[in-house]
Amino acid sequence: MAVSATTSSEPAARRPGYRRLPVQQRREQLIAVALELFASRPPEEVSLDDVAEAAGASRPLVYRYFAGKQQLYEAALRSAAEELAGRFTVPPDGTPTEQLSAVLDRYFDFVSEHHTGYGALLRGGSVVETARTGAIVDEVRRAALRRTVRHLGVREAAGPRLTLLVRSWISVVEASALSWLDEGRQIPPESLRDWLLDEFVVMTAATALHDPQTAEVLTRLLRQEGPDGRAAALAARLQGLLTQ
Amino acid sequence: MAVSATTSSEPAARRPGYRRLPVQQRREQLIAVALELFASRPPEEVSLDDVAEAAGASRPLVYRYFAGKQQLYEAALRSAAEELAGRFTVPPDGTPTEQLSAVLDRYFDFVSEHHTGYGALLRGGSVVETARTGAIVDEVRRAALRRTVRHLGVREAAGPRLTLLVRSWISVVEASALSWLDEGRQIPPESLRDWLLDEFVVMTAATALHDPQTAEVLTRLLRQEGPDGRAAALAARLQGLLTQ
Repeated sequence: MAVSATTSSEPAARRPGYRRLPVQQRREQLIAVALELFASRPPEEVSLDDVAEAAGASRPLVYRYFAGKQQLYEAALRSAAEELAGRFTVPPDGTPTEQLSAVLDRYFDFVSEHHTGYGALLRGGSVVETARTGAIVDEVRRAALRRTVRHLGVREAAGPRLTLLVRSWISVVEASALSWLDEGRQIPPESLRDWLLDEFVVMTAATALHDPQTAEVLTRLLRQEGPDGRAAALAARLQGLLTQ
Repeated sequence: MAVSATTSSEPAARRPGYRRLPVQQRREQLIAVALELFASRPPEEVSLDDVAEAAGASRPLVYRYFAGKQQLYEAALRSAAEELAGRFTVPPDGTPTEQLSAVLDRYFDFVSEHHTGYGALLRGGSVVETARTGAIVDEVRRAALRRTVRHLGVREAAGPRLTLLVRSWISVVEASALSWLDEGRQIPPESLRDWLLDEFVVMTAATALHDPQTAEVLTRLLRQEGPDGRAAALAARLQGLLTQ
């Protein structure tokens, strides 16, 4: 099992001297161990005993930090959410789709690292889900929405259709991550990423037909991509397909 | 309140003779009343007492049919899920996008009728959600997926990319329903429907660039739509936008 392997490569964690860890460090260690367990098993199959064992700690010690499994799950989820939101940082160089491409790569790395837990979370219906866990996930979605809108150079408030476009594309990203996990990660992530970039361009173009604000976004995007960029190449290939 | 109005227009439901309803009919009445309550309030704010009162029945009678609120919620959800899946029936005439258009109209009618309950369900994190309620929602999504794939004339098994496309578009439909509810249903549903149809065509076209099976679907779709159909008009308008 991946977790035992990791733990046994860090034998210090099992030494009786564990009580000497400072409070914040111990808390972070327990969250890290929990995240590793949630990554490979659905949250309902992870007990506080499992977390204590994998952390080389006693059950009472785990309870000193978290009132119960629900609290530990929420803390772990919050930690993962912060980590994911941190990956949305756009690299300074490149065209808009190149920058989006880098963010998608980091997103799929995250999904891969936290596969089972992330899948369970997006699928919903877990016994450890509550209005609070739902709010944590929604906060990440809102962060992704804000970042993407800003990335598109929109300085004013995003109108309902531009918001709908970006929310929709984010839901496509999530659906593709779930599909990817469901099918044993058969499609290479680079290939999914390229498909998502193409979908982003065409979804924006179709929305531009319905909304002046999105039309402005598209014009700016095409200018920044340039005549040899991804959007222009896509337009040329689509033209052939749609007028067959 | 909508529920009281309905109940008072059917005074028989409040008469002491309510116990004479046959078992199946009483069960259906309680589910219908519960659905009406869940439509305008989040599930956690609906009690069995509310259901009993709105149905003109006693609390013990409601308990005779459902072991508790969770069971009643699941029965109501199952009933709504069957109703929704029934609306996916494609009308026999029209081009593929005209047929899809009729299904989307019925879907937005459903969302409108069950607004609060549907929104709460899709947003997740409700205290009454369990693995079982998640499974009911997933079954509706799978039904939508199967119907859409069949509608596209695919007789063999849908490959991973075609499946991903249809799943993604269904997630866009759900995201747009949620956006619509969040923003007080400001965008007219016909306008959302037209946007969703355009997104369907362009998302299919972009996927066709990555997948031979989807390319076949697109070719068939364009042939069925004809040179004066929605897809051709969309292609012409997109051409102008993408080559600006």
